[in-house]
Amino acid sequence: MRTVETLLRVFPMALCVGALVIMLKDSQTNEYGSLSYSDIGAFRYLVHASGVCAGYSLLSAVFAAVPRPSTISRAWAFFLLDQLLTYVILAAAAISTEVVYLAYKGDASITWSRTCGSFGGFCRKATASVVITFVVTLCYAALSLISSYRLFSKYDAPVAYTDKGIEIATFHS
Amino acid sequence: MRTVETLLRVFPMALCVGALVIMLKDSQTNEYGSLSYSDIGAFRYLVHASGVCAGYSLLSAVFAAVPRPSTISRAWAFFLLDQLLTYVILAAAAISTEVVYLAYKGDASITWSRTCGSFGGFCRKATASVVITFVVTLCYAALSLISSYRLFSKYDAPVAYTDKGIEIATFHS
Repeated sequence: MRTVETLLRVFPMALCVGALVIMLKDSQTNEYGSLSYSDIGAFRYLVHASGVCAGYSLLSAVFAAVPRPSTISRAWAFFLLDQLLTYVILAAAAISTEVVYLAYKGDASITWSRTCGSFGGFCRKATASVVITFVVTLCYAALSLISSYRLFSKYDAPVAYTDKGIEIATFHS
Repeated sequence: MRTVETLLRVFPMALCVGALVIMLKDSQTNEYGSLSYSDIGAFRYLVHASGVCAGYSLLSAVFAAVPRPSTISRAWAFFLLDQLLTYVILAAAAISTEVVYLAYKGDASITWSRTCGSFGGFCRKATASVVITFVVTLCYAALSLISSYRLFSKYDAPVAYTDKGIEIATFHS
């Protein structure tokens, strides 16, 4: 499982760098004017989130690859950070999807125009970056599952009606 | 812990219904025209997500309140559904925040106007609904933690270098 976990941490690092580079290079100038990722708040957030995610993925892959005593505090740190990163990167993917959707479809009722009609190349690159970010989100959802297994399997089952009667919660180690 | 969990499931149900009702009643007509939540895709998604979340919260509160044997399959169902709902409701909160942000600030580079200048009441209600949805997200993040504890505490620690040497993964019950 250690190998799977290390790969699941290295893979989103590569994807985050990919999403980051595509978004950073996303700008277009034509007869309608010029448009860059930095003009749109959601895309700036995606760039920052991808950067943080790539950094965390690298650091955590190194930590996860080294065999060392698996302590409760280390398991809690992995669990909380993995959960937090999952939420951060999912939020980045979600708000960027909303902007891309609005840019393609527009919204007549609030007079927001279809920007992608004039900036097709810009929108295609942004879409690619968003799709990659969703794949990163899936990886992080799997990592959250692994790190919560690593953490909570250290604890005994809570006080509850189990198959074997009432148990008392205690620490394993 | 059963009481805390049941409350943590009833509370977001009330909040989801609140967010849902506020958003459903969110429409404004003035000299600039009329605007309703249903004109905006993100707000429609928020309404649907809040409805699903309220229904799931009610059902899961009833299931969680009844004392019965805590089986592995039941713990897996709670864990997966809690995680899924957390992601769904976080995405709803995130994309609605993006739309509210764009409606307040506009975006000059893509010629999207500040809609809230003409529809202030609409934007305030939408903001209230989004804030409530973020509180629901926090509740669900806590529920995810509880249900992953309930699930994975049934398993022993994975094969790893623990404080007490190498352990072999087995089931508790």
